[in-house]
Amino acid sequence: MNNVKLWLSFDGTDFHGFQRQDNGYTVQQALEEAICKITEEKSCIFGCSRTDAGVHARTYCANFKTNSSIPIEKLPLALNTKLPESIRINKAELDFDDFHASFSAIGKTYEYIICNRSILDPFISRYSWHYPKQLDYLKMNKASEYFIGEKDFSAFMATGGQAKTTVRNVYELILTENDGILNIKISANGFLYNMVRIIVGTLIYCGNGKIDPLDIPEIILSKDRKRAGITAPAKGLSLVNVYY
Amino acid sequence: MNNVKLWLSFDGTDFHGFQRQDNGYTVQQALEEAICKITEEKSCIFGCSRTDAGVHARTYCANFKTNSSIPIEKLPLALNTKLPESIRINKAELDFDDFHASFSAIGKTYEYIICNRSILDPFISRYSWHYPKQLDYLKMNKASEYFIGEKDFSAFMATGGQAKTTVRNVYELILTENDGILNIKISANGFLYNMVRIIVGTLIYCGNGKIDPLDIPEIILSKDRKRAGITAPAKGLSLVNVYY
Repeated sequence: MNNVKLWLSFDGTDFHGFQRQDNGYTVQQALEEAICKITEEKSCIFGCSRTDAGVHARTYCANFKTNSSIPIEKLPLALNTKLPESIRINKAELDFDDFHASFSAIGKTYEYIICNRSILDPFISRYSWHYPKQLDYLKMNKASEYFIGEKDFSAFMATGGQAKTTVRNVYELILTENDGILNIKISANGFLYNMVRIIVGTLIYCGNGKIDPLDIPEIILSKDRKRAGITAPAKGLSLVNVYY
Repeated sequence: MNNVKLWLSFDGTDFHGFQRQDNGYTVQQALEEAICKITEEKSCIFGCSRTDAGVHARTYCANFKTNSSIPIEKLPLALNTKLPESIRINKAELDFDDFHASFSAIGKTYEYIICNRSILDPFISRYSWHYPKQLDYLKMNKASEYFIGEKDFSAFMATGGQAKTTVRNVYELILTENDGILNIKISANGFLYNMVRIIVGTLIYCGNGKIDPLDIPEIILSKDRKRAGITAPAKGLSLVNVYY
């Protein structure tokens, strides 16, 4: 059997996350149905990340095994004809038998967009969190430095995660701002359940004065979810890269 | 009575155009309902352009008359609380009694986005026409020059328009391309029904070889809609400016 690695993008607005579930249409279901139509086989596809309902992906990786003889280079266009426009396969390639989109990943980068203007731009409302109140970007920048490095991020994990360890290594956390549109980019060797959204919510609390940036190291050490900020809404979050 | 001028943006995907109609939800209906809730008066709002179903507006102007004593600077935020997120009022100002968003306009600028890549980017699918086949941008550029100036644009008008004259003055028609995303910007003193979409469809025909750019002057002179190209899909079109 061939192990096929797919690189795709999706607008997550209309999906109940990546992973198949009984009570909603998911990206996994859409992909498996499209693969079944093209290969005439029932395949199980593995995604690089579960992603919450409403979260987007500019670059997402998934793999599945198949006996199909369809040339690998024809697969993206063939699958795209069977998928909703909100999911596009950009590339397909063969990988070793033991490649697994989730277990083989050594790192990921996410981006979070905040529309920090009094009035929301309707053209980015699907991909951003509208936060109209004033934010102190300098304080948010200061706070962001304390997240870098290998740490136990229990305080930044929602209940329901299935991670064996709560230690993660954050490589970068970069805030940029242009005309009231705030972009928060974060890379790590892996992320706990809702970790990016809770870090973003905590940075917002540093920007609006509810948390002192200097308290971040202590909040991390406390391992207490209640001391961190709110969970930022899903729609502002996009997976932008996966590393193998 | 005060004559209130509103500057707004809307994502037209979910609307049946601007103008109120019986068989679909329109931007005008959404605005009039929001104004009624805020001012407690029944107002009729006049838009700067009818816009087809699915067409967007980054900058749109509309006006209505009111006896309401709500301070003009509070109107945008008040109306936004009553409007769907896909419509945002950016500014409200008072104008002379005889100002009319449509009749007072002396010019408009539209932009049309074409995703000329083999695979569509799902994040711009709502705002672009996916045209995956190869296009000769030089030929499209050459063709675009012939549209500049005061001309009878009958060949670029769909039936159903109510214009008194079919002469319009096109000030600029600029094509730019970046990584397969084509942006066509066109400014004129006014536009006939579907004029931008038919000009874009004609430029596409110049780019794919179906029309020779050198034939454009003759096609304009023919006043024959059948000699021009197809009508490009509504979703790629956005009104970006109105001049008074």
